[in-house]
Amino acid sequence: MEKNIEISLLFDFYGQLLSQKQQQAVDLYYNDDLSLAEISEIMQITRQGVRDYIKRSEAQLFEFEEKLGLYKRFQTIDEYILRIKDKAVEIKKSDNKDDIHRLSDEIISIAEKINE
Amino acid sequence: MEKNIEISLLFDFYGQLLSQKQQQAVDLYYNDDLSLAEISEIMQITRQGVRDYIKRSEAQLFEFEEKLGLYKRFQTIDEYILRIKDKAVEIKKSDNKDDIHRLSDEIISIAEKINE
Repeated sequence: MEKNIEISLLFDFYGQLLSQKQQQAVDLYYNDDLSLAEISEIMQITRQGVRDYIKRSEAQLFEFEEKLGLYKRFQTIDEYILRIKDKAVEIKKSDNKDDIHRLSDEIISIAEKINE
Repeated sequence: MEKNIEISLLFDFYGQLLSQKQQQAVDLYYNDDLSLAEISEIMQITRQGVRDYIKRSEAQLFEFEEKLGLYKRFQTIDEYILRIKDKAVEIKKSDNKDDIHRLSDEIISIAEKINE
């Protein structure tokens, strides 16, 4: 069983929709990086039981994102925000009125895209 | 039964997590503004059946938001983005280097808050 880095990110996002047991198994496996055997001991269930919890959780987390796409939407916003920040830094450095004007327009245009 | 405006917004966000029948009932009731009787006819179920679908959906939509809080998070981002846009508009209007510098700093600081 291979640990999928994307699962940790989706778990931060949608984890609360999983059952308590599922959350515990995924948290120990992905965040605390424990082995199935170790988690089996902590949760007092079989190794196969742990594996089932994790496999089922992974499938559900992917399904939530496939249906809602909110993680992707946040990622896109993050990228836009970084671009806005870069442009604001450029404005600070600039003495040229035309450049300042253009960069401000670019910030406005990105902001409008996010607010759509 | 009172129509709750917040439900439409939460439905846009989390609606895909509801069953097909629930989605149909909520969509007809909140987006197309039909009555329970009209929906009952369309869906070929009792008026009480429609009411149950809608009540159950409302409870679930609130529960999704209570657990995940993603709608609230997007709303906060939207407010920040509007502030960024206002500041960029001010920069365009300004001839004062100190003001431009200060406004750029404010944009950077808001952007950092969003990216946290």
